[in-house]
Amino acid sequence: MAPPFPNEPAGIHVQTAIPGPKSEALRARHARVQDARTVHFYQDATRSRGNYMVDVDGNTILDLYGHIACVPLGYNHPALLEAWRGGRFDWAAGYRPALGIAPPAEWVSIVEGALSRVAPRGLSQLVTVTTGAEAVENAIKTAFVRHARKRRGGAPPSAEDLALTMLNRQPHTNDMKVISFEGAFHGRSLGALSATRSKAIHKLDFPAFDWPVVPFPANRFPLDENTAYNAEIEARSLDAVRALLASDPQIAAVIIEPIQGEGGDRHASPAFFRSLRTLTTERELTFIVDEVQTGAGGTGRFWAHEGWDLPEPPDIVTFSKKMQLGGYYLRPELFPAEPWRIFNTFLGDPIRGAQLEVIIEVMERDDLIGNVGRTGETLVTELRGLQSRFPGVFSQARGAGTYAAIDARDPATRDAVVRGLQTLGVEAGGSGDRSIRFRPALVFEDRHVHEAIERFEHVARRLA
Amino acid sequence: MAPPFPNEPAGIHVQTAIPGPKSEALRARHARVQDARTVHFYQDATRSRGNYMVDVDGNTILDLYGHIACVPLGYNHPALLEAWRGGRFDWAAGYRPALGIAPPAEWVSIVEGALSRVAPRGLSQLVTVTTGAEAVENAIKTAFVRHARKRRGGAPPSAEDLALTMLNRQPHTNDMKVISFEGAFHGRSLGALSATRSKAIHKLDFPAFDWPVVPFPANRFPLDENTAYNAEIEARSLDAVRALLASDPQIAAVIIEPIQGEGGDRHASPAFFRSLRTLTTERELTFIVDEVQTGAGGTGRFWAHEGWDLPEPPDIVTFSKKMQLGGYYLRPELFPAEPWRIFNTFLGDPIRGAQLEVIIEVMERDDLIGNVGRTGETLVTELRGLQSRFPGVFSQARGAGTYAAIDARDPATRDAVVRGLQTLGVEAGGSGDRSIRFRPALVFEDRHVHEAIERFEHVARRLA
Repeated sequence: MAPPFPNEPAGIHVQTAIPGPKSEALRARHARVQDARTVHFYQDATRSRGNYMVDVDGNTILDLYGHIACVPLGYNHPALLEAWRGGRFDWAAGYRPALGIAPPAEWVSIVEGALSRVAPRGLSQLVTVTTGAEAVENAIKTAFVRHARKRRGGAPPSAEDLALTMLNRQPHTNDMKVISFEGAFHGRSLGALSATRSKAIHKLDFPAFDWPVVPFPANRFPLDENTAYNAEIEARSLDAVRALLASDPQIAAVIIEPIQGEGGDRHASPAFFRSLRTLTTERELTFIVDEVQTGAGGTGRFWAHEGWDLPEPPDIVTFSKKMQLGGYYLRPELFPAEPWRIFNTFLGDPIRGAQLEVIIEVMERDDLIGNVGRTGETLVTELRGLQSRFPGVFSQARGAGTYAAIDARDPATRDAVVRGLQTLGVEAGGSGDRSIRFRPALVFEDRHVHEAIERFEHVARRLA
Repeated sequence: MAPPFPNEPAGIHVQTAIPGPKSEALRARHARVQDARTVHFYQDATRSRGNYMVDVDGNTILDLYGHIACVPLGYNHPALLEAWRGGRFDWAAGYRPALGIAPPAEWVSIVEGALSRVAPRGLSQLVTVTTGAEAVENAIKTAFVRHARKRRGGAPPSAEDLALTMLNRQPHTNDMKVISFEGAFHGRSLGALSATRSKAIHKLDFPAFDWPVVPFPANRFPLDENTAYNAEIEARSLDAVRALLASDPQIAAVIIEPIQGEGGDRHASPAFFRSLRTLTTERELTFIVDEVQTGAGGTGRFWAHEGWDLPEPPDIVTFSKKMQLGGYYLRPELFPAEPWRIFNTFLGDPIRGAQLEVIIEVMERDDLIGNVGRTGETLVTELRGLQSRFPGVFSQARGAGTYAAIDARDPATRDAVVRGLQTLGVEAGGSGDRSIRFRPALVFEDRHVHEAIERFEHVARRLA
């Protein structure tokens, strides 16, 4: 059993509206300069603790959302604070380095002691960057380098190729493509956004590469009552991938999330992912598993794809969020032969890397992934109970670990649930058009599940 | 006068090859996991001080390169260390937030006290992100939102538009374009890379948007001996822009660096930039000034474009590097009407923002921009002396503040100079195909100029 979080608040405590008057006063100041319309409330960073956010109005709020899945150890874990205050990170305090030019010696220890320590099996190589979108951009670039090398049969680019490159008119290259899935979210920079298929408002008015999209086989829950349906949609999705691969030799990669996050907590079976791996292996295409949201323990495994029993590892696995910085693991043969092709100024952030080292130590010491597995069972069981008590409000309870979700009857009801929970001191977030997603910290325990479910019930009684 | 950097080393001290044996041992470990081919040497972060990097072999190295222009206060400035150790940043130690969802209260103070405090005149609004490429990506997206709104005449998108958006086939949108300049560097994600025109190896094998490129009017130096040439190439570049604007209504933006950094320290005149501003204003196109490398004081002004005496401000100014996090300033009317269109998970990093607040305090307290102006005069004078003493080796000395450069006679000589300087304990970097760029910290002083020039002479004598 993981030890309980030290000095965590006893429970939710609401003393004002949420957001309260102090949050609204801060929003008014903030909105003079930045877009503050998306802000739920302003957080008291120092007083927040464990699974509880404290806001500037003094409300103690149970956190199911984890800053969009970014908080591994909860708020102000003593190990992180002690490392900071005890001087363990002081070497990183005096400047921000370009990690590809003159990295501090400590960076090598972070790579070995933290990033490599949790590398997915078979993916011994690592590129670090700063965000998830940047990880996806560079993962896609890596796939394109591999595809172009194969197309040229190892020959160097011609002088004409190089000249046309400078005019954005490389022959062949502009036709290279990445397959992504309906509902996918891979980031918002223009390359990553061309693979993102979540909501029109994410993509509207932004030029996109003409890359193909195929259906995602969103399984229906409970799985044992929907076996035939799920098998059929998975077969249909694989047929769509096969048809594209057969017709377009310029497809370089397939990118997919283990569980679609932003797209609505949509799951597919391990067999489906195994088939995708086999299809891409057969054609020497790059299979990119985007674990930006699923990675680092929330699904009850460090990497969600570890549950698929793949015939061979993915080619690339991307990460960010709970990992505190972005990056991707890759197979050695995918590393570009020339230096500087995958490069940028910062290539990550040593402060965030140093914190990750502590985070991984605590995850191992306290068996937090085990904790996620146990709490996740309680959570999904309780969500199933909720939907059976409020069948007109909730359905489709599902999850892996505490990476869980439940659907509301329609988008308006979902929004009302999220707002209602906020008023009751529970921070939640939506996904897709009608789902409520759980992305709590890895220190989420049964008592927090029960506290959350009680508030869901309260809201559901009003909406039933 | 700025106070001298406290406890800075007396000067260069070389005791091994650079990189030395300890650096090479670290490289061997590092290269098992990451691409370590680009690494100059491994830095002793703690012992580096002021303008001097100390490497893991104990060499004290004068830094002209500043981690590709990222080090504002030099290494381990006491103000940064005291703020860190004194607890000023402790509120940021316990988790990494999604700044658009639940920012810590301190973030609003950072926005007001640091980021807004140095905002370019007329650009009161701010988007923060994490890197320069991400800043450029979102700046371009902002220009596209504006252009599409104008094209629709304020009407909302049609249902067909939204449906085609999800297929990456929006009518009109995929034809929207950004003009950039030969030699430009704006980042390496696929959108930013479509505007980057620096080197083929940066772009080869990566799909690009079909955006147009125009000549950059790289002025010849000394300016007073090349007046006619410079005026002619500026007129030719403006004619190329005018021709594109007249022929293609889908051009949404023009993006340009005040001084091309990666592209070879290429300068143009204030009159040229004023003309670009006027051309874009007339057509309601977005004028993006990319100050990722020039921003935050290195040119002797906080923003390089402040020296242009523009008829009205740029629409957008991007930043990163010395600012420690990425972002852009924009005019209020360019803010998208709907929330969530310009958004991502992290939207910056509060630790890097908190450090920026200290950096700006020190810049003001110690008049570091004044220091850059004074040192810059010495530096450019000394570079001119160097080229007059070694006319067969060096030419084209130029600079604004300490953002300076000199050309070697050919690419091989440039590479030999950079390698020779490294051996003598001077960290330098190239730009373009034959330039050596100066991007020292803002605490660079005359004594460092003289120490550097002496090593340049030593190298030049061998190459003359």
